[in-house]
Amino acid sequence: MSDGPIAVFDSGVGGLTVVRALLAAIPGERIVYFGDTARVPYGTRSKETIRRYALEDARFLLRFEPKLIVAACNTVSSTALDYLEENVDVPVVGVIEAGAMAAAKASETGRIGIIGTEATVDSRAYERAIQRIRPDAKVIAKACPLFVPMVEEGRVEGDVAELVAREYLGGLAPIGVDTLVLGCTHYPVLKGVIRKVTGDAVGIVDSADETANAVKRLLEEEGIAAGEGRGGIEFFASDNPGRFRHLAVLFLGATTCSVTLVEPEDFFGGGA
Amino acid sequence: MSDGPIAVFDSGVGGLTVVRALLAAIPGERIVYFGDTARVPYGTRSKETIRRYALEDARFLLRFEPKLIVAACNTVSSTALDYLEENVDVPVVGVIEAGAMAAAKASETGRIGIIGTEATVDSRAYERAIQRIRPDAKVIAKACPLFVPMVEEGRVEGDVAELVAREYLGGLAPIGVDTLVLGCTHYPVLKGVIRKVTGDAVGIVDSADETANAVKRLLEEEGIAAGEGRGGIEFFASDNPGRFRHLAVLFLGATTCSVTLVEPEDFFGGGA
Repeated sequence: MSDGPIAVFDSGVGGLTVVRALLAAIPGERIVYFGDTARVPYGTRSKETIRRYALEDARFLLRFEPKLIVAACNTVSSTALDYLEENVDVPVVGVIEAGAMAAAKASETGRIGIIGTEATVDSRAYERAIQRIRPDAKVIAKACPLFVPMVEEGRVEGDVAELVAREYLGGLAPIGVDTLVLGCTHYPVLKGVIRKVTGDAVGIVDSADETANAVKRLLEEEGIAAGEGRGGIEFFASDNPGRFRHLAVLFLGATTCSVTLVEPEDFFGGGA
Repeated sequence: MSDGPIAVFDSGVGGLTVVRALLAAIPGERIVYFGDTARVPYGTRSKETIRRYALEDARFLLRFEPKLIVAACNTVSSTALDYLEENVDVPVVGVIEAGAMAAAKASETGRIGIIGTEATVDSRAYERAIQRIRPDAKVIAKACPLFVPMVEEGRVEGDVAELVAREYLGGLAPIGVDTLVLGCTHYPVLKGVIRKVTGDAVGIVDSADETANAVKRLLEEEGIAAGEGRGGIEFFASDNPGRFRHLAVLFLGATTCSVTLVEPEDFFGGGA
């Protein structure tokens, strides 16, 4: 019952911040990660396309007989989580709910800022999740389309990163937020520059950390946590494993990792 | 013989700068444009994936019985043009050759800078094409990964655009180029800010304009130019036609355009 791995997927490498948090929170678990680098990014695609891609990704991971699947992608979590839950037989954990819960609890003023991709912001998923818990909350969301390419270029500090961060986060100023949710799995890599711009008065909620904690709680509640010392991780990517490896080192803070290329015919168009 | 349209494709909206140049150079021709917005960007994908996507795009366009196909994408032109030529029965025109030719002719010092996506730069296609024409040329190439997302965000001027441009173009300074090739179809939209950074002493070669001129010459040489006044244009996109329409207005300088969504099953996995 507790033998299966934790399966994690993302449109690309962003979900690795969730993997990093999982490795810290539940080091005894096996992890299988799939990054759909052949079709990244999802954040500018239509809802229908995001749903189709997400289900194909989840189906690829089902072959590892996981005990649960983490959709480590805010875009998928905000637009396709219910669709995945309907079509997949194991529990699916997204990254929105845990982050929204943490923000709703942490905020004193109830004024909460969300930053994410266009699709995540357009979905209003964080607003809905936060206001379910705390109906008085005032939530403002801002899309930051340059953040993902900046991270993937390794541009996580310096003049450009700071100027871009200052401009995007300036969009949250009108309501004076006291809590900021990093609503995209790439953004924790930019935490340093974001912190520099917001100053210490704003609390930063990292969805990756919150999601890892939620997974840990779920495993304990369901009694399906793995025993000690049986961890391990496998990486799969649908394109360009060399680029994935390069970025994985940046995201995981590891020195190296091994990645298996998944040929598209192995999972695209797998039928309904 | 001269009845078919000019078929143009790109990974997304970038090829619209080529369409704009074609509309100016050969206004009498019908144009069919396909933007593969479901799988954009191509610039960070592997060579094998780029070839497969390009052939699927070209096959979709063949149903319109075009007299020629323009691969209006530097990434495709640099990594998949020979592959397309082997697998498609109509002439295929890329965007590299014409730009390289124009740069080789325009440069006085033979010191030429190329800017493009990671895939275009890694392919060294511009260097090879320029040095075939002008073996003494010294070519330096620089990937500018933030330029495409900047354009798609509409961020084509202002502090961030200028700072990013200054940083990337600074990478060309060591050899003191007198000619700069915009080796990505998105980049003509940034011509203003690029010009501001380079100053007037550097000649800017716009691959889109050069490609349109090359198509015009080819039609005349082959005697397959259309008659007068029969122009017109149709747009197809594989995802998110609303976003395509929004960006098309920016790229074409038009006030509106109509876009048809192509369902993925209509052209993905069409067999060998």
